Amino acid sequence: MLVVKKFGGTSVANKERILNVARRCVEDYQKGYDVVVVLSAMGKSTDELIAMARDINPNPSKRELDMLVTTGEQVSVSMLALALGSMRIPAISLNAFQVAMHTTHRYGNARLKRIDTDRIFNELEQRKIVIVTGFQGIDKFDNITTLGRGGSDTTAVALAAALRADACEIFTDVDGVYTADPRHVKTARKLEQITYDEMLELSTLGAGVLHNRSVELAKKYGVVLVVRSSLNDHEGTIVKEELDVEKMLVSGVAADKNAARIAVIGLKDEPGIAFHLFNSLASKNINVDIILQSVGRDGTKDISFTVEEDVADEAVAILQKSFPRNEYKMIDLDKAVAKVSIVGAGMQTNPGVAATMFEALYDAGVNIRMISTSEIRVTVLIDEDNTDRALRSVHNKFDLD
Amino acid sequence: MLVVKKFGGTSVANKERILNVARRCVEDYQKGYDVVVVLSAMGKSTDELIAMARDINPNPSKRELDMLVTTGEQVSVSMLALALGSMRIPAISLNAFQVAMHTTHRYGNARLKRIDTDRIFNELEQRKIVIVTGFQGIDKFDNITTLGRGGSDTTAVALAAALRADACEIFTDVDGVYTADPRHVKTARKLEQITYDEMLELSTLGAGVLHNRSVELAKKYGVVLVVRSSLNDHEGTIVKEELDVEKMLVSGVAADKNAARIAVIGLKDEPGIAFHLFNSLASKNINVDIILQSVGRDGTKDISFTVEEDVADEAVAILQKSFPRNEYKMIDLDKAVAKVSIVGAGMQTNPGVAATMFEALYDAGVNIRMISTSEIRVTVLIDEDNTDRALRSVHNKFDLD
Repeated sequence: MLVVKKFGGTSVANKERILNVARRCVEDYQKGYDVVVVLSAMGKSTDELIAMARDINPNPSKRELDMLVTTGEQVSVSMLALALGSMRIPAISLNAFQVAMHTTHRYGNARLKRIDTDRIFNELEQRKIVIVTGFQGIDKFDNITTLGRGGSDTTAVALAAALRADACEIFTDVDGVYTADPRHVKTARKLEQITYDEMLELSTLGAGVLHNRSVELAKKYGVVLVVRSSLNDHEGTIVKEELDVEKMLVSGVAADKNAARIAVIGLKDEPGIAFHLFNSLASKNINVDIILQSVGRDGTKDISFTVEEDVADEAVAILQKSFPRNEYKMIDLDKAVAKVSIVGAGMQTNPGVAATMFEALYDAGVNIRMISTSEIRVTVLIDEDNTDRALRSVHNKFDLD
Repeated sequence: MLVVKKFGGTSVANKERILNVARRCVEDYQKGYDVVVVLSAMGKSTDELIAMARDINPNPSKRELDMLVTTGEQVSVSMLALALGSMRIPAISLNAFQVAMHTTHRYGNARLKRIDTDRIFNELEQRKIVIVTGFQGIDKFDNITTLGRGGSDTTAVALAAALRADACEIFTDVDGVYTADPRHVKTARKLEQITYDEMLELSTLGAGVLHNRSVELAKKYGVVLVVRSSLNDHEGTIVKEELDVEKMLVSGVAADKNAARIAVIGLKDEPGIAFHLFNSLASKNINVDIILQSVGRDGTKDISFTVEEDVADEAVAILQKSFPRNEYKMIDLDKAVAKVSIVGAGMQTNPGVAATMFEALYDAGVNIRMISTSEIRVTVLIDEDNTDRALRSVHNKFDLD
């Protein structure tokens, strides 16, 4: 039995928590398991290092920033090895170069290419707990790189795939994946299991305890993930390809208030207009989510879409530059909107699911402004004020309480 | 022109000092020089990391301690690269593995074996300032090692040798090497030049701005060292094999109060007694300095010697264990003693130097308790109370004021 266990920054924020992580690892080690641990930097140390860098250079080189911040994980892995040493458990820490974790050379957002497994297997054979720095890699010129957001999860999943681990446990500060955000829906329930696809939809919707990239990687290599708390022994949620039990129709409800709706009114109804509009946004790396196009009066059309709220002003500015003032009537921006979504592998074969959701919203007196669907997801755009009411009503309607 | 510049921890302790170091490097860079910089960890960060390690494990594994503390230099080199970036000077930081600096695998006290120069020359050709982590290396299994005390100086000298640098500048918080410690002898004068051998004698005597190991390495490879201040533009002191100008008879006076005299009185005058005595101390790693043996009364002899004051009690305890109580009369320990030494390559061919020193001590009314000499050094043991008076009198006698 080989397990990869990943602990985030809050789980190793101080001496007591590092000792707690050490005890979690020793439990499995003493069962005879091979244990590989992936760690993030302690607490807020990555943020502190970045602040230090920006203080001396407001536009820091990404290469040097990666060189700087990766010291954070090297500190946490050696501290855990020392903690295990104090318990007389043999352990060894390895950084990205010692493993080695080969990546592309895109600093700050590199992709893992290949992981050498010799050193790790060698240390495991000597019955050591192997502790690996998350988040970091090396390019082919031996420069240090980092994997970007959710990087340590990605390291853990990729390691689990490379080592053909029996399980990959992602420890967080919540008990697992819930049917809705427990801070907003008191009746939210922890899921025992969820599929990769459902997890991906939930991550995208901002309900993510896991970063998309790590879930995609787990799906690609069939790595079974367990999301669980580092603070208790609860079972957690298993993320895998197919669920053992009969699929629930809907496995979760999520809300995302970081949304804004932009409507471009009175555009000329000519071929290529939509392409020009979305291309101008894409070229500035602005992601567009739900899109609605409707025919307006006098041979014009209206195009509405949603973007993340933080980039909404920039999106409007781009559109004003891209279109001569006489080619549209007005641009309308509404930031007081939210997305509410239901996700469930079961809905692929159940055409009535969307209708049930709309009924729940109607019951709650919530007006639907836009709709978007995928095979396993239905998302609606509503007024932000209605978010919690909508969440609770939908959650209740699908018997998730 | 290729220069290696080494800055210690206090020189990079904060943002302002790092920017100061950056400016020092840019001066040479803008003259067209190739500039390689070696840095220690910022301020007290190494001590802080060690304290953190000991807090979680009072007997930390040396491997993991090296893994932990070497993050310190990685932080300082990337910070300097960022500082140079803010001045629009191309720079790149490299750690021990990126260089690579190959060492033995004795954690905490490794020896440099070989330095790869390809990467550094490659970066210099692209007109970058190359910033290298001092103090650290990697063993043949890619484990991270450290070089022990004075490690960053050693890194700088070894790099200068490997790169065939034209000069190796060691920046410290003093202006250079002085004829005596300026804190005790107000009339002390900075030396323009000093030989490796003189520097080695001075280091051993506790007057060292440079660690012995780095001076030995510089001597071995003929690396010309410049010791100078990071806080001003003064010329500093050049350390090399032969001095250009006519040799000064005596180039410096040093005092060392960390000394204690142990006298074993009334030992049986038998063959092997002295061997037994010094062997028992050596086997416990206690270094003995000046030794005096005299014939006592009744066919016995007395052996006196000096050790470092901090190990004096331990030395006495070892002797009491090593000799049955009936084999000696008494052991006398005196901690209130100090060593005063004169050092100078010129004295090899000047037999009168020692006599001149004794005259100076006589003038000052200082009693000499023991004497030891080498080809370029004369050391006397005196009462600790007399140290400053002795220093000043000798300094004045040799016209060093």
